Amino acid sequence: MSWPENEENLEERRTRWRARHAESDAAAGIETTGNFTPFRQMDDVFTRAFWDERVRTKESDAFFDSYRADFTARRGDGFNQRDFALRNASWLISDLITDRHAGQGRREGFQAAISDDTPVVEEKVAIEDRAAMSAEIKKVARFFGASLCGITGYDERWTYEARVDVRDFSEAPVGLPEGLESVVVLGHEMDEGLVATYPSALAGAATGREYSHEAAIVMQTAAYIRALGYRAVASMNDTALVIPYALKAGLGEYARNQLVITPETGPRLRFSKIFTDLPLAHDAPRKLGVAEFCAICTRCADACPVNALPYGAPKADRPNRSAIQGVVKWTSDAEKCFGYWAKLASDCAICLRVCPFNRDFRRRTNRLWLRLALSPLRRLALWLDDRSGRAKRLRPRDWWAGSR
Amino acid sequence: MSWPENEENLEERRTRWRARHAESDAAAGIETTGNFTPFRQMDDVFTRAFWDERVRTKESDAFFDSYRADFTARRGDGFNQRDFALRNASWLISDLITDRHAGQGRREGFQAAISDDTPVVEEKVAIEDRAAMSAEIKKVARFFGASLCGITGYDERWTYEARVDVRDFSEAPVGLPEGLESVVVLGHEMDEGLVATYPSALAGAATGREYSHEAAIVMQTAAYIRALGYRAVASMNDTALVIPYALKAGLGEYARNQLVITPETGPRLRFSKIFTDLPLAHDAPRKLGVAEFCAICTRCADACPVNALPYGAPKADRPNRSAIQGVVKWTSDAEKCFGYWAKLASDCAICLRVCPFNRDFRRRTNRLWLRLALSPLRRLALWLDDRSGRAKRLRPRDWWAGSR
Repeated sequence: MSWPENEENLEERRTRWRARHAESDAAAGIETTGNFTPFRQMDDVFTRAFWDERVRTKESDAFFDSYRADFTARRGDGFNQRDFALRNASWLISDLITDRHAGQGRREGFQAAISDDTPVVEEKVAIEDRAAMSAEIKKVARFFGASLCGITGYDERWTYEARVDVRDFSEAPVGLPEGLESVVVLGHEMDEGLVATYPSALAGAATGREYSHEAAIVMQTAAYIRALGYRAVASMNDTALVIPYALKAGLGEYARNQLVITPETGPRLRFSKIFTDLPLAHDAPRKLGVAEFCAICTRCADACPVNALPYGAPKADRPNRSAIQGVVKWTSDAEKCFGYWAKLASDCAICLRVCPFNRDFRRRTNRLWLRLALSPLRRLALWLDDRSGRAKRLRPRDWWAGSR
Repeated sequence: MSWPENEENLEERRTRWRARHAESDAAAGIETTGNFTPFRQMDDVFTRAFWDERVRTKESDAFFDSYRADFTARRGDGFNQRDFALRNASWLISDLITDRHAGQGRREGFQAAISDDTPVVEEKVAIEDRAAMSAEIKKVARFFGASLCGITGYDERWTYEARVDVRDFSEAPVGLPEGLESVVVLGHEMDEGLVATYPSALAGAATGREYSHEAAIVMQTAAYIRALGYRAVASMNDTALVIPYALKAGLGEYARNQLVITPETGPRLRFSKIFTDLPLAHDAPRKLGVAEFCAICTRCADACPVNALPYGAPKADRPNRSAIQGVVKWTSDAEKCFGYWAKLASDCAICLRVCPFNRDFRRRTNRLWLRLALSPLRRLALWLDDRSGRAKRLRPRDWWAGSR
C-alpha cells in the first residue's frame, strides 16, 4: 500500500512545503497541519468501491452497472427508463475517452491523465508577454466551451502519490512530466434545470453532460497549447486534486458542501485542468466572503439524507481514508455519501441544489442577492433565501414537460 | 465504378420515386428531372482529392497535410501558427471519431456512418403519441447542444449508392439497415465572430469546432434513442445527403450559396442526422421566401474568388461529377471551390460570410430585417444590407484581440 519512491522523505517535503506555501495558502484560504500527506488515488471512494470491502456492496456494484448502456429501470418519477437513458447517453463522450486505454490499466480522465492525442509541434511560438498569453489561453478555453478559466502555479502537494491501474487496482506512478509549472483550471457549468431535480437519475444527466463537455474542452485546449510548441497534459479527476488549484487560480472559494463557490455560477460547476510549460501569468486567489456565509449556513448539512456533511467550523480530522490527511477544512464523510449514491443507483447532489449560492447570476436579482450574501448582511441574505422557496426540488416529470 | 446491386433497376426506381415524392418535393422546393441518379460518395470532391487526378494536386495534398496536428505555418494575419493551432485543435473530437475505425476502411462521420457505441436496449419504451415523442427527441437534442432539430421521413433517393473504403478508395455498401423510417436532422450553429474572418485558417476553427460538437451531439442523441429500445444510426457527412432532409424537416430553405437558410441562424449552420425506427411524427417543409430573395441577390456569387457559384435561375445541369445528377437547383462548381480551399490550405466560406442572411437573429433589428427580406420588399432589404457594411471581413488579428 505504500509508494516508497516518495514515502521515504515525507518529513523533508512537509518542511519544504510549509516554507514555500505558507503565504499563498493563507491568501487562498488553505490551511494544512503538520501531518499533511498527499492523497493516493486508491483511497478515493469510487476506487475503493472496487477493492475495499468496507465500500464495495451489492448496491455499489448495481450503481456502476446502472451506467451500462443497456440498463433499464422503472422506479418512479426521475428513475424511469427515459431518465436513465438520458443520463447514460450524456456520459457517452466521457466514456469514450475513459475507455480508450482501459485495456492498459489507464482509465483516462478518472484514474490516469488523458494521453496526448497530438504531438508538441517543434516550432514554439515566441512569448513576450505572459499576461497576454494567459489572456489568450482563457479566450481559447472559452471558445471551446469552458465557462470559467483561471491559471495558477504547479504545486506538488496536490498530485496523487500514486494512480491506480484499473486492471487490478494496484498502484502505479502518476507519471506527470517534470517542468510543467503552470496549471490551467477550467470550469464547466452544470445545467440549472436538471440540477434542480436532484436526487434523481435524470439529474445525473447534468453531471454526465458536463463530463462529456469537459473531456472535449480540456483535450482541445491542451491540443491548442501543444500546437503552439509547448507541453500540455489534459486532466479531469485524475492525477491531482483540483479544488486547491481552483482556489489558488482565483475562481472561487471553498464551501461547506465540498464545492467551490464562484461568483459566476455559484457551486454549479465542475473542473478540469491542464499541466503545462507554456509561459503564463498566474491569477491571484480571491477572498469573496463565502467562508463567512458558510459559517452561518448549514443548509447542505441539514439536507443531506445520510448526514455526510459537517456542522461547525473547518477541522483537520478526517472521517476516513477517502479524505486528504492534514488539511483544515469542511470535510464530508465520503463513505456515507457514496453509500447513498449506491442506494439511489445515481449520483446525489442535493447539497448542490439546496446551496443558497445555486442561482443563475445572469439575473440581476440574483446578483443583488450575491452582494448581500457576501456582505456583513449575510444573515439577511440567508433569511431571504429561506423565504424564497428557491431550493425546492423540481419534479423530474416537470423537467421533461418543460419547453426546453 | 458501378454498383450493380442498385444500378440494374434505376429506371424502375425513378418511376417509383416520381410517383411517391412529387407532392412532398414540391412543398420542400425540391425538383428532380428524368435522369435523377443518387449520388455516390466517391464523387464528392474531398474523396476525389484522393483518387482523381483531376482534383488531386500538390496543393490539395498540402491542404490535407495542414490539418495534421504538427503543422505550423506563417503566412500573415489569419494564417499564423496560432490560427492553424486553433483550427486544428478545434477538430480534435471529430478527428477522434473519424479515426477510430479508419484502419478497417471506415472513416466514420465522413465516409461511413458512426458505429453504434451502445446497444439497443431490449425493453422498448411504450410510445402512445408520436408527436410527444418527437417533442421529446427535440428536447433531448437541444439538451445535448443542437441549435435546431427537425424530423422527417426516410427517403432512399438521398442515400449514397455506395460509400468508399478509405484504405483504397474502392466502393463499399453503405449498409444502412432497413426499416429506419425517420430521420432526425440536427442543426449546429457556427460561431459568428469566426465566420466573419473568412477567408483564413482561423475561420476554419468555426468549422472544426462545430464538427466536434456535432459528433458528440449526434452520438449522444442516438445513444438516447437506443436506450429507449429503438435503433438509431448517427451520421454526419456520410451515408446520405443531408440538405434535402433539412428542407423536408422544415428547418429552412435552399439558397444560391448551396446552404440551407434558417430563420434562427441564417446560413451559419451545419447539419447531422440520425436514421431511426423510433415512432416519430414528422415536420412539414416551410416556404419562407428565401428562394425569392436569392433570385434577386448574387452577393455570394459575386464574392466567390473563383466563380464557383451560379448566377441565374436554378438549373438541372451539373458542372461536373461532384454534383448530384438530375436535381434542379443552384449548383456550385465543387472542383473550382475545392481548388481554392487547397490554395488557402483551409476551408473557404466567403459565400457564408457575405450572405445577407448571415446575422444574429437573437437581435431584434436583425429579426425585423428578416421579415423585410422574406416579404415582397426584399429589394429594400437587400439595399439596406448593402449599405450596412455587415458583410465586411473581420481581420483575424481583431478576433484575437476581442474580449471573447
